[in-house]
Amino acid sequence: MQLLEERILKDGKVRDGNVLKVDNFLNHQMDITLFGEMAREFYRLFQFDNVTKILTIEASGIGIACITAQVFNCPVIFAKKSKTKNIAGDVYTSKVESFTHGGTYDIIVSKEYLKPSDRVLIIDDFLANGSALSGLSSLVKDAGATLIGAGIAIEKAFQSGGDTLRSQGMRIESLAKIKSMENGKVQFCDNSCN
Amino acid sequence: MQLLEERILKDGKVRDGNVLKVDNFLNHQMDITLFGEMAREFYRLFQFDNVTKILTIEASGIGIACITAQVFNCPVIFAKKSKTKNIAGDVYTSKVESFTHGGTYDIIVSKEYLKPSDRVLIIDDFLANGSALSGLSSLVKDAGATLIGAGIAIEKAFQSGGDTLRSQGMRIESLAKIKSMENGKVQFCDNSCN
Repeated sequence: MQLLEERILKDGKVRDGNVLKVDNFLNHQMDITLFGEMAREFYRLFQFDNVTKILTIEASGIGIACITAQVFNCPVIFAKKSKTKNIAGDVYTSKVESFTHGGTYDIIVSKEYLKPSDRVLIIDDFLANGSALSGLSSLVKDAGATLIGAGIAIEKAFQSGGDTLRSQGMRIESLAKIKSMENGKVQFCDNSCN
Repeated sequence: MQLLEERILKDGKVRDGNVLKVDNFLNHQMDITLFGEMAREFYRLFQFDNVTKILTIEASGIGIACITAQVFNCPVIFAKKSKTKNIAGDVYTSKVESFTHGGTYDIIVSKEYLKPSDRVLIIDDFLANGSALSGLSSLVKDAGATLIGAGIAIEKAFQSGGDTLRSQGMRIESLAKIKSMENGKVQFCDNSCN
């Protein structure tokens, strides 16, 4: 998606350890107009899949998921990290590895909100090693719901998460796919990336 | 706001310790159509205040804030809890007491995204003891920005946060104000609440 790629080139900052900082517009300050364009692109890609629910993970996926859900006219559920006293009763749970903070954490979704009849679109801001996406898809599987696929804002295609999950049959649509960030310069995939 | 009050009566569940569970539509599963109506009500209340930025706190404020920002046509910033390696450079920071999880935590906002020229509307899902709202307003003050006020989905008016902050001059508009939740029954404020 050209608009997002241009924005990454303009405002993204490459940091040590293959970190791409996009907190100017994506995951700290959020450009809601841009989110609206991204939502329309996700709709173009998944509009015939009868999505009944959008699933994301706190915190930085929530904004994109909500704006996208407006276009799909469906509710959002966000998987919560770790335990909270405010979720009572039965939950589906899964483990996610955190590369930003180190270690692993549990994500949970209340069983009330994921049903076998649901057709779920996962929305998230980043895909790199694929741990969050894999954890979310496992919640969908545990619920017996149908996973339509995943809509991702930025995929680091030089990390293996996307390829691994695609090879397992998951449909993943990433609006910006980064081939490399060598020497602080972001390069996007052309046809050679996949 | 009648639509929200009706939804609380229909789907809210009162739990021990004055906990109101609204995770069916507000802070786990999110009813984006309802959020749209709430956003329009916030706009009606603050439309003449030249809001340039909406500030919220992760995680459950983000959805309402983003849908509201669409109507105001401005960006959202969400204050992050605790430290993260992905926020580089200078931040404004403040302490918030957590009654759900116990203890206190730091919230941070990058100095890049709150400027003295900003006119800030705080949006959050709950107001009870006022600790989060007080922490957010202190970030705005530290930035030298103008705090327009706060738009809250649900205020527990039987707790002191709202009254205390109003008495300090903060404008707070709560879409549903709960007078009591005794015996598991939610009662809203009439004119007697404030």
